Amino acid sequence: MALSFELLHTDTMSHARLGKLTTPHGVIETPVFMPVGTQATVKTLRTDDLVRCGASIILGNTYHLYLRPGHELIRQFGGLHGFMNWPHPILTDSGGFQIFSLGQLARVTEEGARFQSHIDGSRHLISPERAMEIQVALGSDIIMALDECTPYPSTYDSARLSMELTCRWAERCVAAAEDRPGGLFGIVQGSIYPELRSRCADVLRELPFDGYAIGGLAVGEPQETMYDLVGHTASQLPAHQPRYLMGVGRPRDLLQSVRLGVDMFDCVMPTRNARNGFLFTSEGRVVIKNARYRDDDRPLDPACECYTCQHHSRAYLRHLFMAGEILGLHLNTVHNVTYYVQLMAQIRQAIRSGTLAEFTVPDV
Amino acid sequence: MALSFELLHTDTMSHARLGKLTTPHGVIETPVFMPVGTQATVKTLRTDDLVRCGASIILGNTYHLYLRPGHELIRQFGGLHGFMNWPHPILTDSGGFQIFSLGQLARVTEEGARFQSHIDGSRHLISPERAMEIQVALGSDIIMALDECTPYPSTYDSARLSMELTCRWAERCVAAAEDRPGGLFGIVQGSIYPELRSRCADVLRELPFDGYAIGGLAVGEPQETMYDLVGHTASQLPAHQPRYLMGVGRPRDLLQSVRLGVDMFDCVMPTRNARNGFLFTSEGRVVIKNARYRDDDRPLDPACECYTCQHHSRAYLRHLFMAGEILGLHLNTVHNVTYYVQLMAQIRQAIRSGTLAEFTVPDV
Repeated sequence: MALSFELLHTDTMSHARLGKLTTPHGVIETPVFMPVGTQATVKTLRTDDLVRCGASIILGNTYHLYLRPGHELIRQFGGLHGFMNWPHPILTDSGGFQIFSLGQLARVTEEGARFQSHIDGSRHLISPERAMEIQVALGSDIIMALDECTPYPSTYDSARLSMELTCRWAERCVAAAEDRPGGLFGIVQGSIYPELRSRCADVLRELPFDGYAIGGLAVGEPQETMYDLVGHTASQLPAHQPRYLMGVGRPRDLLQSVRLGVDMFDCVMPTRNARNGFLFTSEGRVVIKNARYRDDDRPLDPACECYTCQHHSRAYLRHLFMAGEILGLHLNTVHNVTYYVQLMAQIRQAIRSGTLAEFTVPDV
Repeated sequence: MALSFELLHTDTMSHARLGKLTTPHGVIETPVFMPVGTQATVKTLRTDDLVRCGASIILGNTYHLYLRPGHELIRQFGGLHGFMNWPHPILTDSGGFQIFSLGQLARVTEEGARFQSHIDGSRHLISPERAMEIQVALGSDIIMALDECTPYPSTYDSARLSMELTCRWAERCVAAAEDRPGGLFGIVQGSIYPELRSRCADVLRELPFDGYAIGGLAVGEPQETMYDLVGHTASQLPAHQPRYLMGVGRPRDLLQSVRLGVDMFDCVMPTRNARNGFLFTSEGRVVIKNARYRDDDRPLDPACECYTCQHHSRAYLRHLFMAGEILGLHLNTVHNVTYYVQLMAQIRQAIRSGTLAEFTVPDV
């Protein structure tokens, strides 16, 4: 099998797990955070920067890459790995989420999702089969099934219909992705209804997926609802396969979700916040434009070993941000991505040493 | 003396010179190109990138740094070297050029240049004494005298008055910069009038400057006029001191000006053009957004050893540019700066080996 997951250890005080995910492009230690590389680049970072930040896997966005530069072009370059010169693992989403958040006039039929490009208005249909074809062309190590991300709030009945469509699409994805280079994950939907989540998991468990994602969360529901549903859904998934919570989130969300049994995460928060000057540190959030940093000669985070913290002061980062300098966006991103990657390394170490119960992250 | 220049060799077929300029922060081989680091950063580049591009000295813009973050703040951080963490040589301009190109309601009196900030409209006076004080606070290795950059076109009489003011200011700069950490260069003005250039050089030669710049060119005059004036002015300057042609220019301008006896250059062209997708290569100009590069798997310049050319295809660079990705601006800048720095290294080698007469650069 092109993808294999080894469950190394389960925490005794929580549902947290240590794992090893082997992909065609390398081995990943879990729990893991995947920086988001929307358009064949994690914004502002070179691939050597990503390696130095400690990133072991990145996420690519199928919707964006399909529209620009196009998956056939990327296929010619040996897939996304060759095109962007990243030899390490890549997970691609299915494009479904962006079709509805970015595409124009999007509508769903049994066949698939129709939409118009946010770039040039051109019309497209992404069916489950098409989503698999595109991700295979991208050469993804981990392909995501096409799902419908149920909006929040949704009534029970509309959430049920949406979840059932996701299940039927999942079956078509499995059939269409037989020649994939890596693994295929199914996505559990069901909005905020535990019963629907269970029913979705029941269906997907019967399909030969290599792992399972929890989708449709962090879309506006209260934090406690999200944690309840993460815990509930994770408990419905096979222990010996990886679990991925899509699009989440803040450092405390990652920690809490690891405790609930999640292995993989992605989120634009470290990269987007970096470009907005919101920086994560071991002492809490730093809003770099704040006047208090004007003459602050300390590194952003004295506990951090990233390039930014090893070479520059808060005052310099503030100056770059206030002056609108691109270098500031880059240095901020290096730091935030390192923070997230290091946080996961510390969480893994805490699981290993049985100290996860005492592990805390600063509130941001 | 904090700055010393050793003239190593003069070409037999032209006025080209090989030199060694020793500054408080290191030795520079001349002829040299200085990337422009306007706001305490060469746009999109980290200081380790600059080192890898081969840059041995960069330029800082006094006008910008004085307004933001302020020279007193930079002084607290050990000057610009400490503030931006660049331990190698820095030349700072005097601010005069930007006062007139960016400042609002700028006007000149005998005392100095008054203007309002382009950032917040605040009122300022930069006198020769103030320009020296600011550059000393910045810790510059090479300080430039405050001059009036004579606009083009100017009548002989207004160019003469402007040049004479520059000469009086030069004298005040020398008196005010006694405690400087490095060297001080005078600037020859005189518009397109060789006689005024000569008279300015006559005055400045009598002052204890460590080098001389040729200012007020590449401001709209025809190319041949510029070359004539560069050659004429260079011939009026002391052979055993460095000569710096300010704000010039295209690769062929650098080559031609080296032949006319110039040792130092700065220009925003490699960095600004990079951000606009205009790239310099050994085979000529590449406009990266051009559709012909869509699936071009070759490096930008097969003859180039920069990070960009060693790691990425033209197709990837085009994609990043079309998608508006910051990484594209960075990778383009790495290449263009390397191109300029390498061009100067090749020119030095050609002088050394007596082959400068046959040296050519592609027309861009």
